[in-house]
Amino acid sequence: MNLHAQWITGFVDGEGCFSVSIVKNEKTKYQVMPEFIITQHERDIQILYGLKSYFQCGIVKKNGPNSNCYVFVIRDYKLLSSRIIPFFEIHKLKTKKRIDFEKFRYVVNFMMEKKHLSLTGIEELQIFLKKWRSSKRKVEYKDQE
Amino acid sequence: MNLHAQWITGFVDGEGCFSVSIVKNEKTKYQVMPEFIITQHERDIQILYGLKSYFQCGIVKKNGPNSNCYVFVIRDYKLLSSRIIPFFEIHKLKTKKRIDFEKFRYVVNFMMEKKHLSLTGIEELQIFLKKWRSSKRKVEYKDQE
Repeated sequence: MNLHAQWITGFVDGEGCFSVSIVKNEKTKYQVMPEFIITQHERDIQILYGLKSYFQCGIVKKNGPNSNCYVFVIRDYKLLSSRIIPFFEIHKLKTKKRIDFEKFRYVVNFMMEKKHLSLTGIEELQIFLKKWRSSKRKVEYKDQE
Repeated sequence: MNLHAQWITGFVDGEGCFSVSIVKNEKTKYQVMPEFIITQHERDIQILYGLKSYFQCGIVKKNGPNSNCYVFVIRDYKLLSSRIIPFFEIHKLKTKKRIDFEKFRYVVNFMMEKKHLSLTGIEELQIFLKKWRSSKRKVEYKDQE
């Protein structure tokens, strides 16, 4: 399946997700996990393989044991930095998802500079993510009014 | 907002909907209502106006009085036939939504030939739509297994 760059941008504007979480592992060390993910029903799994082939990275896997959905996901921040971020810098998202992308890019660049390896860096990121989530919640809260 | 044809195709692969309904009006006459529709949260209403401007037809309106979503919708079968169908014949959808588009096109062409104006035509369309919905329900049923 040959995918056009603009088709990918439009599809990601509809279906893509840029997110970041910070998890604490057993050794009480913090791990920053950026994630670019696209979910599709199994009937469209070929789209996910098409994206994997286009970006030459990422994996396609079932979205949970009882799910009929599959995900295409990239979590490696070096690959996100070298393949995903330059793509969306050239082929700009048209929806407000662009704001998520810009915040996501900030975190990936932060990691590329190894700033996430210090506790100060983690604290800085936690504040950044809190603000990001809060700005998203404001939209959701407004939806419930 | 300038939208690229391939961006539109990718976005519709994610967010677009092709549907047809048959309603009976007060005078017990049947009305066939094809509909191409894209729904977005109000924060992305500018995308809907961009689509309206691209296709030079359709309307943008609130999706219900208490909704925070807006829709871009085209219902006129002549406009669907002259602007929407030729577009997706050139810029082919990549997901299984293409099957919905092909069934939708069949109905619009049926209307362009005025076949929906006879009771025989309406009956033929009702059978066609029943089969279409049944094939979609099979996927949904499989999801619940």
